[in-house]
Amino acid sequence: MKLEKLVGERFKERPSECQIESHAIMVKGGYIKYVANGIYSSYMPLKRITRKIEQIIREEMDRIDGQEVQFPVCMPASLWEESGRYESIGNELLRFTDRTGTKMVLGMTHEEAAVQLVKEYANTYARYPFMIYQIQTKFRDEARPRAGLIRVREFTMKDAYSFHTSQEDLEEYYERCHKAYERIFARAGIPEAVSVKSDSGMMGGSVSHEFMLLTPVGEDSIAICRECGFSANMEAADNIIENGADAALEELKEVYTPDIHTIEEVCDFLKMDVKKSCKAVVYQKNADDSYVIVFLRGDIEVNEAKLRNYLKAEVHPGVITEDSGINPGYIGPLGLPDGITVVIDSSLKGATNLSCGANKEEYHCTGFNPERDLPENTEYVDVGKILEGGICPVCGKPSVGISRGIEVGNIFQLGTKYTKSMGMTYTDKNGEQQTPIMGCYGIGVGRLAASVCEVHHDDYGPIWPMSIAPWQIHLCGMRIDNPEVRAAADKLYEELLDKGVEVIYDDRDVSAGVMFSDADLLGVPLRAIVSPRNLKEDSVEISARDKSFSEKVKLSEAAGRIKELVEKELSACEAAAD
Amino acid sequence: MKLEKLVGERFKERPSECQIESHAIMVKGGYIKYVANGIYSSYMPLKRITRKIEQIIREEMDRIDGQEVQFPVCMPASLWEESGRYESIGNELLRFTDRTGTKMVLGMTHEEAAVQLVKEYANTYARYPFMIYQIQTKFRDEARPRAGLIRVREFTMKDAYSFHTSQEDLEEYYERCHKAYERIFARAGIPEAVSVKSDSGMMGGSVSHEFMLLTPVGEDSIAICRECGFSANMEAADNIIENGADAALEELKEVYTPDIHTIEEVCDFLKMDVKKSCKAVVYQKNADDSYVIVFLRGDIEVNEAKLRNYLKAEVHPGVITEDSGINPGYIGPLGLPDGITVVIDSSLKGATNLSCGANKEEYHCTGFNPERDLPENTEYVDVGKILEGGICPVCGKPSVGISRGIEVGNIFQLGTKYTKSMGMTYTDKNGEQQTPIMGCYGIGVGRLAASVCEVHHDDYGPIWPMSIAPWQIHLCGMRIDNPEVRAAADKLYEELLDKGVEVIYDDRDVSAGVMFSDADLLGVPLRAIVSPRNLKEDSVEISARDKSFSEKVKLSEAAGRIKELVEKELSACEAAAD
Repeated sequence: MKLEKLVGERFKERPSECQIESHAIMVKGGYIKYVANGIYSSYMPLKRITRKIEQIIREEMDRIDGQEVQFPVCMPASLWEESGRYESIGNELLRFTDRTGTKMVLGMTHEEAAVQLVKEYANTYARYPFMIYQIQTKFRDEARPRAGLIRVREFTMKDAYSFHTSQEDLEEYYERCHKAYERIFARAGIPEAVSVKSDSGMMGGSVSHEFMLLTPVGEDSIAICRECGFSANMEAADNIIENGADAALEELKEVYTPDIHTIEEVCDFLKMDVKKSCKAVVYQKNADDSYVIVFLRGDIEVNEAKLRNYLKAEVHPGVITEDSGINPGYIGPLGLPDGITVVIDSSLKGATNLSCGANKEEYHCTGFNPERDLPENTEYVDVGKILEGGICPVCGKPSVGISRGIEVGNIFQLGTKYTKSMGMTYTDKNGEQQTPIMGCYGIGVGRLAASVCEVHHDDYGPIWPMSIAPWQIHLCGMRIDNPEVRAAADKLYEELLDKGVEVIYDDRDVSAGVMFSDADLLGVPLRAIVSPRNLKEDSVEISARDKSFSEKVKLSEAAGRIKELVEKELSACEAAAD
Repeated sequence: MKLEKLVGERFKERPSECQIESHAIMVKGGYIKYVANGIYSSYMPLKRITRKIEQIIREEMDRIDGQEVQFPVCMPASLWEESGRYESIGNELLRFTDRTGTKMVLGMTHEEAAVQLVKEYANTYARYPFMIYQIQTKFRDEARPRAGLIRVREFTMKDAYSFHTSQEDLEEYYERCHKAYERIFARAGIPEAVSVKSDSGMMGGSVSHEFMLLTPVGEDSIAICRECGFSANMEAADNIIENGADAALEELKEVYTPDIHTIEEVCDFLKMDVKKSCKAVVYQKNADDSYVIVFLRGDIEVNEAKLRNYLKAEVHPGVITEDSGINPGYIGPLGLPDGITVVIDSSLKGATNLSCGANKEEYHCTGFNPERDLPENTEYVDVGKILEGGICPVCGKPSVGISRGIEVGNIFQLGTKYTKSMGMTYTDKNGEQQTPIMGCYGIGVGRLAASVCEVHHDDYGPIWPMSIAPWQIHLCGMRIDNPEVRAAADKLYEELLDKGVEVIYDDRDVSAGVMFSDADLLGVPLRAIVSPRNLKEDSVEISARDKSFSEKVKLSEAAGRIKELVEKELSACEAAAD
């Protein structure tokens, strides 16, 4: 491929609208083009990268006995009604009607389609276990697409579904898939991706893990214990709070607190530590706008994913109307109007002598002792965010750190959520009808490419690992107007093609500056320079994009040496997976 | 791959709802599963076939300097509004709104997206010509999906777009692409696909060709001259009519024709040949329901595609209301009410002494002589269907035959329809702004797979060409409960895997009947049978799915011989393209 013919614009300036580096590089380097919010077209360099990533994924899925299939992008809503998700998922599930008025959805995940595909086939235990997967376009109508390919609305995803006759069998396969994922990320150039325990969210099921690439620009927060290495998505990390009880319990009494609304104002006014307060956060259920009020210790924030999981319902921040009977600024857990769902966070367990709202204009209470003052059967639920320095749920030490990461893959033990709701059964060895158990396993292809770029770049562009690089060698014919350079560079180009090396050849009559800045933007891991100066020594200069080495080899040996270097780097990518 | 583990059901009975063989085979053999009208999931065997087809297409597109890119499935309507197609295309363009209320469409073709991708890049002549292509999911909301994968709503398509600075350059590239298509079809196993001149329809542009696989089950009609080989889609075949003029022109007069409505009744009543009548066919424009009446010689039918192209508007069969002023059964070209679009077919040119309706209840006319009686500036337009035995527009002989075929690909010279409407320009050598010229080139991947199946099958299943077969060899371990068979078959399986041969291994303890009928349904071109009888002779039986040969080879040489046969057949597929 000649660079001159490569379709796509490369820009000198960093695009101002890009907040993260991979997004800026993809726009600047002619990898993607914006089509609509969260929707991009890909130019050839990115298409070559994603095809290589897809091939790595395919090989690793095949290695764990996966069978590649294909589900539709457009599915009848009836399929999603069977599982109950047509109702339970919000606006991110794009619903539409076809020309006949039939309700349809755009696939954002394919559990329903997977069950539909194998439901009749897998009607006897002898056919288990098995795994099917696809690499296909998905659409998720995200409210806030961001960061280039990191969070888009349309994306290519590998999604896999396994079916089992026992939880043990699922767990065994889950472990195999976990290893396959480690191999995929290692082969794609990010062996540093870590798996963290996660919340299953709308997928259902119990155990699940996310593979996280730690980077400050990630949109996910992860709790990692500095002592024992435990890691979990914030949503899945238990927030352990130890409240030292006071010696004496104060009496509950009302205090006049004029014009005092926020938790900080209350604590200031009462001269109490914020940990000695009980704060209220108001939500409404999406389904019926009914109120949900969460009470937590003053220094703890609500983790909304935990809250949603507990309620098994979607919520949004509440808007307090006049006829709600709620006194904004003075909300407390005692004496609230009927019809409100009250959630007491576990951070209040064992806490003593707190301040809280009195549910009365301009009044707060002091001496609130939850375990004394709340009903005996009160359930304390963990809906709080774990904090930096929090207590590790595994080793018990106060050594939790909060890092940020990009989720590059996830694996779920789904249980029987889909098979049960969709009526899938099999006959077991004893002739009894049983419900199969599922697992599902996803990797976003474009996001993975962007994530690699995020951790492998310098100020001038990406540094692609050999295994997924758009080309293997970037050949520069410097001062191509010089007939000797032209002849030598053309010859090397042909030799490389003959050897099956993927080469991008820059034979434009442009300055070294333009040539190198374009090469930096394409991020090909190896570079070969044919120039008048090198030719004087009958040599070609071969260097690494990451500047780790540079060498001169004889012109006649250049193609062979390049082939050798390419294979060495490819082997290194493979070896990283073992 | 062990057959026992292959996900998908195979059926003994032919599914009753299937009208064509490829559809029946795909359902019966566990290739596809119905999800919704015109929407299917694919099991592994079909996925393997389509991936091989995609790879053949990719190689041939790369060979003519194509650059693989990717456009979105979901596009903003604004892009289609720019080209005017958001309005002009009917219900087959699926329109929907996203969560923000933005109007979107599902891509059924990507001319707009292609222009959007390269508009800024290709702003100077030096960047031309170039071609970009993608292999991507498309959705076309067909009113009547049919015949399994032949006419679906969701499908995978390779669509390519080329950009040029002159018509000559487009034509040269068009010819290269034509050759690439011939190579693709030959490599995929249907070298018999023929290219026919076609109508460009909603794509715009002038010259275009369809690649047709001739088969009686095809839904397209093609005119092929038995003398000179000229071929064209019916919509693109000129309908040449030679009317021998009568010696004397009769007087135009009204005749009382009580209770006579159809053209046959009129001709019977007047004792005239149907060729001596002028018939009327009534349409309405979709846009405003205004009437369009086509007049043709009594024996000629309207080709609606020709009519639509002439009118540059969609039409539907007319419903004649009482207040329309039209007299159904008595419609003639003279004295029609105002406001009706009248189209005179070229079959009336030179015709003499015809009968026609008198636009008056119970009256017809005789002695209608179009060139005498119609206004002098009357335009005679070819909107008639060519007939079996019609006159060839190239050699002039009455030797046109009508065949049926499946369209497996198409190529279009688009001209400037999209670049102009979307404001794409480039600076030419003289610094002047010019509009680039486009070509576009499509192949439906699933339809191609079904078409190959349609022409390569027997009563028991498909006979896949080696180049696209799901596996290369089907290994049967017959009487696998015999330990010697088990050992020999397992060993051969491992040897084949080691040699990189794609093998599907049936090691089930089932009867020969079940084993062979499953093998027939999978249609793998080569079969190897390890059985007690063969083992007695220390041999393996290797045979072709198409029964063209069968041989016994020594067990120790079997893997090598199979590898050799596979390579031979692969080479033959390649050679067919040269």
